Amino acid sequence: MSGHRPTGRLHLGHLLGTLTNWVRLSETTETFFEVADLHAFTTGFENPQAIRDAREDLILDWLAAGIDPERSTLFLQSAVPEISELHTLLSMIVPVSWLQRVPTYKDQIEALGPEIATYGFLGYPLLQLCDIAVFRADTVPVGRDQVSHLEFGREVVRRFNYFYGETLVEPQALLSEFSAVPGTDGRKMSKSYHNTIDIADDEETTTKKVRSYITDPQKIRRNDPGRPEICPVFALHHYSNAARVAEIREACASGALGCVACKTELAETLNAFLRPGRERRASIDRTRVDEILRDGSAKAREVANATMRDVRRALKLVD
Amino acid sequence: MSGHRPTGRLHLGHLLGTLTNWVRLSETTETFFEVADLHAFTTGFENPQAIRDAREDLILDWLAAGIDPERSTLFLQSAVPEISELHTLLSMIVPVSWLQRVPTYKDQIEALGPEIATYGFLGYPLLQLCDIAVFRADTVPVGRDQVSHLEFGREVVRRFNYFYGETLVEPQALLSEFSAVPGTDGRKMSKSYHNTIDIADDEETTTKKVRSYITDPQKIRRNDPGRPEICPVFALHHYSNAARVAEIREACASGALGCVACKTELAETLNAFLRPGRERRASIDRTRVDEILRDGSAKAREVANATMRDVRRALKLVD
Repeated sequence: MSGHRPTGRLHLGHLLGTLTNWVRLSETTETFFEVADLHAFTTGFENPQAIRDAREDLILDWLAAGIDPERSTLFLQSAVPEISELHTLLSMIVPVSWLQRVPTYKDQIEALGPEIATYGFLGYPLLQLCDIAVFRADTVPVGRDQVSHLEFGREVVRRFNYFYGETLVEPQALLSEFSAVPGTDGRKMSKSYHNTIDIADDEETTTKKVRSYITDPQKIRRNDPGRPEICPVFALHHYSNAARVAEIREACASGALGCVACKTELAETLNAFLRPGRERRASIDRTRVDEILRDGSAKAREVANATMRDVRRALKLVD
Repeated sequence: MSGHRPTGRLHLGHLLGTLTNWVRLSETTETFFEVADLHAFTTGFENPQAIRDAREDLILDWLAAGIDPERSTLFLQSAVPEISELHTLLSMIVPVSWLQRVPTYKDQIEALGPEIATYGFLGYPLLQLCDIAVFRADTVPVGRDQVSHLEFGREVVRRFNYFYGETLVEPQALLSEFSAVPGTDGRKMSKSYHNTIDIADDEETTTKKVRSYITDPQKIRRNDPGRPEICPVFALHHYSNAARVAEIREACASGALGCVACKTELAETLNAFLRPGRERRASIDRTRVDEILRDGSAKAREVANATMRDVRRALKLVD
């Protein structure tokens, strides 16, 4: 079980760091992937239309990345109201101090200001647990920044099972060992830095963005020796041009390879790497998106309902 | 719209202060009465069986008081998951500071200790608003202690309607002007003081409890003059023996009426007052309770679903 908030297009960082992993997992195990529209409200509640509009792009990015709706269940969080029901039920057993102690809560309030702190924002990791627990998902692929959320969630599950008997499953983190993909400015690729290559970018845009990457500032003339170990363009060659990495390192360091030629080669290999996804995206009938989410959400509800029957029974809400 | 938490038997204070009012309202308007089992979890989550067991007593107390399930919708909060869904949706727009500022939150933490503060306990007034808003109820009979909750709820509704268009109804408080019913120890009748006469008490128990009431401590011998204005037994005569109040006041003050005789008269009139309710309770087939709640909850869900369709559309969750 994993998901993304519909807050904008996904980029190469998502593709290499997350989606490739999802595709691999979905080949051997039952997988649920969530369009986390309720979570998008925690920071974007003033603009529900933007959340609605981002839904289609997100699904298209997933399909382009190779997620197969026949194999995985793709669903819309708000279309599975059992998640919200579980959120309200579990709210009763979660000390408010547990939520206040989650590191990302404090960090985000420092970064975005205290007005970000809605009741739902405070409960973000609890809603996230409900996404997972309602499907009794046992494994959650996460990045390092989400580990504290999952630890919180495991504590809540243990507390529930302690009070009401074994009902929910303690989810395990599947930590992604992936190192951050560098963006055009050399920092970690991130939408908020405006330094991304998006999955949805066409060949021309991708080529232009590759050309705009910063490189080693000491390599001023074409034949100056470069330092590939600090160059984001060199780092990207690992993903789309792995066979040539050793040669490029040497040619850059010796001054034989200039940055323009190096970027041209990267743009070509990157476009070749992204081409199958672009073709998948182009072949998708956009009206299929609603259908995929409708079918997936219906399937997700079936699983969620089975869990909720047990949860309601454990809480003695039903006999 | 109003409700009670299933946390134990109701007493004369509930009957005279609340239920009589509910019955009157239900004669002229559409009414929804809620068994607030989720709210009971905010303070009693360790013991779900106690919440379950209190459900039947609560319904029997209501029926004894004259609430008519043919006329009013009696429902179980947890059986209307739309309330929980709305709670999760609204959590996204409610600043956590609004909830922290609600006076009862601070008061209860002071009274019951900080470990009471679960996430759901903090959100108590928000869940209460959802109980009301999901039925678009326009009027809520409340006691003075609940006025701050309703004020909070009205603010949340205004905020929702401001961001997403007129969708929810701002509920109005219908303030009960009723003065507190005194318990056997002279303090306000309250379960936590163990000074109640319960609606479910039989004649003998009621008589015994009336006999145990404190009276004016200066009236030691039967013929000592009493001070009816400070005597809880005199206060109770107003409810079940209104026609005799003036005579009793005089006879008590002059010393002509002793406390034993005064209590005997009160017990007789109180039992006469409670007898029709006791007969209603005795005539109810207890298996009907589940049926009443099942039917009422189904009807409540219909109304709640119509509201939620509009809420989901306003939030652009559905087209």
